[in-house]
Amino acid sequence: MIYLDNAATTRIDDDVLAEMTPFLKENFGNPQSQHSYGRAVANAVTAARDKIAELLSCRSEEIYFVSGGTEAGNTALKGVCAERGKGHLIVSAIEHPALLESAEDMQKHGFEATFLNPDGNGRISPESVAAAIRKDTVFCAVMAANNETGVIQPVEEIGGICRARGVFYYADCVQSACTRALPVEYCDALGFSAHKFYGPKGAGALYVKSGSKISRLISGGRQEHGLRGGTVNTAAVIGLAKAFELACRERESAAAYLSGLRDKFVSRVLSEIDGTHINGGGHILPSHANISFDGCEGENILFYLDLNGIAVSTGSACSAGAVTPSRALMAAGLSESRAKSAVRFTFGKYNNFEEVDKTVEVLKRAVAAIRNK
Amino acid sequence: MIYLDNAATTRIDDDVLAEMTPFLKENFGNPQSQHSYGRAVANAVTAARDKIAELLSCRSEEIYFVSGGTEAGNTALKGVCAERGKGHLIVSAIEHPALLESAEDMQKHGFEATFLNPDGNGRISPESVAAAIRKDTVFCAVMAANNETGVIQPVEEIGGICRARGVFYYADCVQSACTRALPVEYCDALGFSAHKFYGPKGAGALYVKSGSKISRLISGGRQEHGLRGGTVNTAAVIGLAKAFELACRERESAAAYLSGLRDKFVSRVLSEIDGTHINGGGHILPSHANISFDGCEGENILFYLDLNGIAVSTGSACSAGAVTPSRALMAAGLSESRAKSAVRFTFGKYNNFEEVDKTVEVLKRAVAAIRNK
Repeated sequence: MIYLDNAATTRIDDDVLAEMTPFLKENFGNPQSQHSYGRAVANAVTAARDKIAELLSCRSEEIYFVSGGTEAGNTALKGVCAERGKGHLIVSAIEHPALLESAEDMQKHGFEATFLNPDGNGRISPESVAAAIRKDTVFCAVMAANNETGVIQPVEEIGGICRARGVFYYADCVQSACTRALPVEYCDALGFSAHKFYGPKGAGALYVKSGSKISRLISGGRQEHGLRGGTVNTAAVIGLAKAFELACRERESAAAYLSGLRDKFVSRVLSEIDGTHINGGGHILPSHANISFDGCEGENILFYLDLNGIAVSTGSACSAGAVTPSRALMAAGLSESRAKSAVRFTFGKYNNFEEVDKTVEVLKRAVAAIRNK
Repeated sequence: MIYLDNAATTRIDDDVLAEMTPFLKENFGNPQSQHSYGRAVANAVTAARDKIAELLSCRSEEIYFVSGGTEAGNTALKGVCAERGKGHLIVSAIEHPALLESAEDMQKHGFEATFLNPDGNGRISPESVAAAIRKDTVFCAVMAANNETGVIQPVEEIGGICRARGVFYYADCVQSACTRALPVEYCDALGFSAHKFYGPKGAGALYVKSGSKISRLISGGRQEHGLRGGTVNTAAVIGLAKAFELACRERESAAAYLSGLRDKFVSRVLSEIDGTHINGGGHILPSHANISFDGCEGENILFYLDLNGIAVSTGSACSAGAVTPSRALMAAGLSESRAKSAVRFTFGKYNNFEEVDKTVEVLKRAVAAIRNK
């Protein structure tokens, strides 16, 4: 199989699984237990938290372990709303459903929300954020990079504007964490998920700047400084820390390698298959290529490739199954037919150039077959 | 090490880990993906859900995968509150913090709550539930068995009362699921967690009776029929299903074996160490023995045993670190000194009679040493 759906999820790195394994076997204690057996596990959880904090240049107590990126985004948005009681939210129209739907849920509870459209390149302009801020704006979410197009967002500028105006800024870094440094110093909170960078599913981290007012989403014991109840998923958070360490260490070389794969792929597709268009412009994550194929439905390309052992996506995996065109692409002003003809190819460290070439060849046959139907 | 803290967490069964392992390695796809590689994983998740539904004699679409028992309880309580907007909650005073603190959080949002005390045996009487129900009562939580004492609660009667009065009844089965059948037909929702019965941490199931009105806690993609966003932790839910299958299959023999261990332990402690008292009466889970030792602090016994390689608890692990006496024991009317002198011994399938005898011997020395200080 040629797996070009690394934005949906990635294979666990063997070194990560090796660090997790003792915690799936003999080190099974509950880190909340008072006996030495539990405390040994608690120490490993603390070390994982410290490692992430060090890599982010923040304080350990600013890192909260959660079940993943979706819970991180929910905790930030709903946690600020619960604290504030009422007010106005700004959420980009290209956010992950975790943020979009959380904002919609809060609208039912009396909050107002502005969903900011990107420009034609899929970029949220800092000016549009500044213009949307009201006196009662309490929260703003613009992701570090979009999951469908890979378009990198101006988080530093947006963070600066939010800080100057006293608005809590959340940067969803789920998609960017694998290949870009995280904008800790520009935001009040950010979230990321291990399974997007060769770590396990079921573990994410939420950074919340010390002193921020945020209520808990999941109430319970004293875990995670009281912000998140529930027995810590020890193996998973230890895997998260190891995977994040590897991602940070390999970030530059990984970005260069992925850019090489992606650029070759894109240049071959655009030059060898006519009627093809890149979706998204400006700075794009090195892992992503979102391409529309005139006269094709993205789903049909996906199925053709799938029959030939190549895994791709037509949008974010979380929205798969829905027949509506991509919300992010439509928000950028693309026509419905172009949005429906889009395919997302996302590269990872286990891909190679031979796979790129093979995919281009199969893709040519796919497009020809679909157009000739 | 002699591990007598099985109520806090358990070691993963080798057969469970074997079922999980392919999903930590080669079967890493996202079950939301549309390609066959993702669909294969989705089929495994569906099979896991079907298996649990079959074991519970409910419908597959009534089973929601969550990160654990705490999230299950939060989703039920807050999900009903979000749907109803206002009203009165009944929560037993011996519930897990997941329920107690969720109710306290909802009080801040205008809900009223009654915290029902148990009788001197640690049992919540159905009559007290009936008396607490008001016209505006929207939710009731009384756990199937208490995590600290193991006292089994009259969930069938309480469920019947709630149903007759139109109150949504949630049965927290986290502690009981290992050794008792779950009261699906008597409740509107129930929750349990894999790591309490030799499954992995990070996976729980929430059963919600079809037709119940409940809002989502974690918004996002269309996972879990829209009730719970976030990439499914595939390996963990597959482990949950396998562990639950084993628990159901082994339930009677496990209960008999654990009763044997526990009864021998309790009878030796009560007869060979004077000034000892069982906390909780009536029907108690076969895994649990909660014993107070006159003239001792439970913590000191815990530390003495720990130094001798025996792991026990002084209360629920989630409250460990707190110096206050057990909330559940105090609610049952025990004196502060008796509550503070309590130690929880919880047996699991990997324990044996030799460990029971060794623990009694060490315990005798511990109590003598502490009393002679």
